[in-house]
Amino acid sequence: MFDADTYRSRRRTLQQQERPASGLVLLLGNQPSPRNYAANPHPFRQDSTFLYYFGLERPNLCGLIDLDAGTSTLYGEQGTLEDVIWSGASPSLQEEATTAGVRSVAPLSDLASTLTDARSQGRPLHFLPPYRDAHRLRYESLLGIRPDRVDAFVSEALIRAVVRQRSVKSDAEVSQIEDALEHTAGIHQYAQRHAAPGVPEQTILGGMTGRLAEANRSFAFTPTCSIHGEVLHNHSYPNTLAEGDLLLVDAGANSPLHYAGDITRVTPVGGSFTARQAEIYEAVLAAQEDALAALAPDVPFIDIHRRAAHTLTERLMEIGLMQGKAEAAVEAGAHALFFPHGLGHMIGLDVHDMESLGEDLVGYADDQSRPDQFGLDALRLARPLRPGFVVSVEPGCYFIPPLIERWQDEGRHEAFINYDRVGDFLGFGGIRIEDDALVTDDGSRVLGPDLPKSVQAVEARAGTAASA
Amino acid sequence: MFDADTYRSRRRTLQQQERPASGLVLLLGNQPSPRNYAANPHPFRQDSTFLYYFGLERPNLCGLIDLDAGTSTLYGEQGTLEDVIWSGASPSLQEEATTAGVRSVAPLSDLASTLTDARSQGRPLHFLPPYRDAHRLRYESLLGIRPDRVDAFVSEALIRAVVRQRSVKSDAEVSQIEDALEHTAGIHQYAQRHAAPGVPEQTILGGMTGRLAEANRSFAFTPTCSIHGEVLHNHSYPNTLAEGDLLLVDAGANSPLHYAGDITRVTPVGGSFTARQAEIYEAVLAAQEDALAALAPDVPFIDIHRRAAHTLTERLMEIGLMQGKAEAAVEAGAHALFFPHGLGHMIGLDVHDMESLGEDLVGYADDQSRPDQFGLDALRLARPLRPGFVVSVEPGCYFIPPLIERWQDEGRHEAFINYDRVGDFLGFGGIRIEDDALVTDDGSRVLGPDLPKSVQAVEARAGTAASA
Repeated sequence: MFDADTYRSRRRTLQQQERPASGLVLLLGNQPSPRNYAANPHPFRQDSTFLYYFGLERPNLCGLIDLDAGTSTLYGEQGTLEDVIWSGASPSLQEEATTAGVRSVAPLSDLASTLTDARSQGRPLHFLPPYRDAHRLRYESLLGIRPDRVDAFVSEALIRAVVRQRSVKSDAEVSQIEDALEHTAGIHQYAQRHAAPGVPEQTILGGMTGRLAEANRSFAFTPTCSIHGEVLHNHSYPNTLAEGDLLLVDAGANSPLHYAGDITRVTPVGGSFTARQAEIYEAVLAAQEDALAALAPDVPFIDIHRRAAHTLTERLMEIGLMQGKAEAAVEAGAHALFFPHGLGHMIGLDVHDMESLGEDLVGYADDQSRPDQFGLDALRLARPLRPGFVVSVEPGCYFIPPLIERWQDEGRHEAFINYDRVGDFLGFGGIRIEDDALVTDDGSRVLGPDLPKSVQAVEARAGTAASA
Repeated sequence: MFDADTYRSRRRTLQQQERPASGLVLLLGNQPSPRNYAANPHPFRQDSTFLYYFGLERPNLCGLIDLDAGTSTLYGEQGTLEDVIWSGASPSLQEEATTAGVRSVAPLSDLASTLTDARSQGRPLHFLPPYRDAHRLRYESLLGIRPDRVDAFVSEALIRAVVRQRSVKSDAEVSQIEDALEHTAGIHQYAQRHAAPGVPEQTILGGMTGRLAEANRSFAFTPTCSIHGEVLHNHSYPNTLAEGDLLLVDAGANSPLHYAGDITRVTPVGGSFTARQAEIYEAVLAAQEDALAALAPDVPFIDIHRRAAHTLTERLMEIGLMQGKAEAAVEAGAHALFFPHGLGHMIGLDVHDMESLGEDLVGYADDQSRPDQFGLDALRLARPLRPGFVVSVEPGCYFIPPLIERWQDEGRHEAFINYDRVGDFLGFGGIRIEDDALVTDDGSRVLGPDLPKSVQAVEARAGTAASA
């Protein structure tokens, strides 16, 4: 945890400067998630907004912030002797509350009546959208709202206040992200060094998993470790690497306080890119470096997305995969055949930061509406950047057979796409290059240790451990 | 998966020989479990009973078995182009159904009206208890039953039929458990060889985690890897091993088809048990070996539990920790100060097999009722054994300071417990020794590779990798 003042100060900011109105803010901590039966849960993951304001990792807590009185209460259950026998001793609820700067604690069983009393006095109650079924059921038990109707009652004012606050990272939060990136870089180096012909994807994933676990870290999200990089979120690992494949690894570690890293690298199996692979790789790298250079306060991220698309499109035109004017092609969305996703997203306590609060309220300013053009509609972040934002920058270029087939059948964007040439690239796979950057007062800074990404640097590392 | 005939035959058995009555059986497959937002789920775990009858690992399926017609239908959604782009191509619903021997498939959106029609015709509908909140909400959306009232409508007849069937393992299922135990033994050997002074618990856990991941296996349950073995389900790993500690590892791998292994070993850090540690270790080992020797068809497992408790008690009397007559002490439950849990449980698709169906219906025969004596009340399995049962046998002896303090304050079982002597053992930790055994026609067989457990064998392996 950070120190108690950090959490106290965050709650005070929510209450004083960003308060969504008056009344009460209810923040649900998470409950254990059962795997195959209740007593065999997945590793516990606390709710990120609860972590932000209360920092505690204990399951089954709720936090209540009184916006008018400026006080907070932590609701939970005390451990029993049975808990001590089976799970070990844990601090008392009061002791835990103190570490979060909270003086008042109460049994969870008191919370429903407290909320009922407040509502009967006409006090507004603010709460966030449910993203787990357990949240729906808890809202029902606390507030009497039917599970399928909870979404209609969430507080947009609270969402906006939380988004404003969580979007801007403090130095201490940036340090956490740097810690996550230290470990993220370590597993990427591991993967690059082991990317050699004959090695199963699963073996590389296993090595990365073990390295993280030994360091008491875990993956912030299910990693991609695949020679089929054209599947954007590829979560299966059945293949064995062969000479000439491209291994795409998109992975990130958690920091001790659950901040995420998120890096993507592509390594040529066998140690050298083919000329064609190198051309596409350089195109993606150019797009990424242009985008990183453009990060600065007040620049809308959607403009940087378009800039990266433009750079990529120009390169693809040089290669002969696209044709016509790059600007017109990007405007029409033709490049999305190759780059069908957004340039990036905010990163923090969640790898897609605050995604549970709703992508549009997080990523789009009030005067921006989400585009409906294919590809651009997947852009999670569009709003003008502010100092303290941490964002991923991750353009890619993919050859996705069913997408190509669909577009070609429809004759889509024929003016801009050279489908004959594209046909030569079926089976190429995909390339994405991703780093995480902090927006600073006068520009930006790539976070984490240097993880070289030039063609030469990647080739120099490829497979070196396996051949040693 | 097993072959299609396996699943067809299991459903036919449910329908013909074990049918809970007439009507329809609804089996819910699992949905993804969100971690910190919906699109960042935990690794998917299919429901075990769904796996048993349908074998499919795809999320968001439901199976419907018509007990009268003898037919089965698989409800699910077809993948979209968007799914292919983001997650990769997957077989069609019909292709998946075929691998499970199911001919009929339908969109998930049809299921509610099918069930409504069946109920309006007065056909009984049988379903199992929810153990995830998602199940409650799905039952509500399919059947209109309020989430908090679902439990009142589950089918005891169906539970009993499923328990009868799943309790008896086929040869193919036993092979899966043996596969799980192969990997389980591998990680135990790893832990034993690395149990040396100065090594953090987390490092050993990380090495086990990596070994499993490289082999495309995972933990069947959250492992214990602790010098505080007196915490029965210790899931934290903050300590560094020191000379004289006992490292207790309770861990099991999954097989490819999700059958579990479950083994516990204790290793002396530094390579040698102290005389006191060896005495307690030998006491637990004697209890375990007595229990294993007693496993046979028709023997109630609760009798074997009592036998292990008796052996342990006799040894503790020799050591001077207990006194009086062993039989009377066990009858009174005095031994539970040292052995406060059950001797074991069934193992199969769940490490506590079928625990989601209710421990009592799984583990207790109709003429047995669950004891309420402390310690014995934690016994998950009491019923007479049958050939094909796979069970864990895991006695233990622990020195749990808050439990000892409580009992001593209350003067509990003073006739049988020598609290002065017990006081000398505070800080000892705990010892548990666990293997998994198949009940055969004429006795039992310990499953998996030999994982030596004598004092000498354990000492010979302790820390050998770290000192190499």
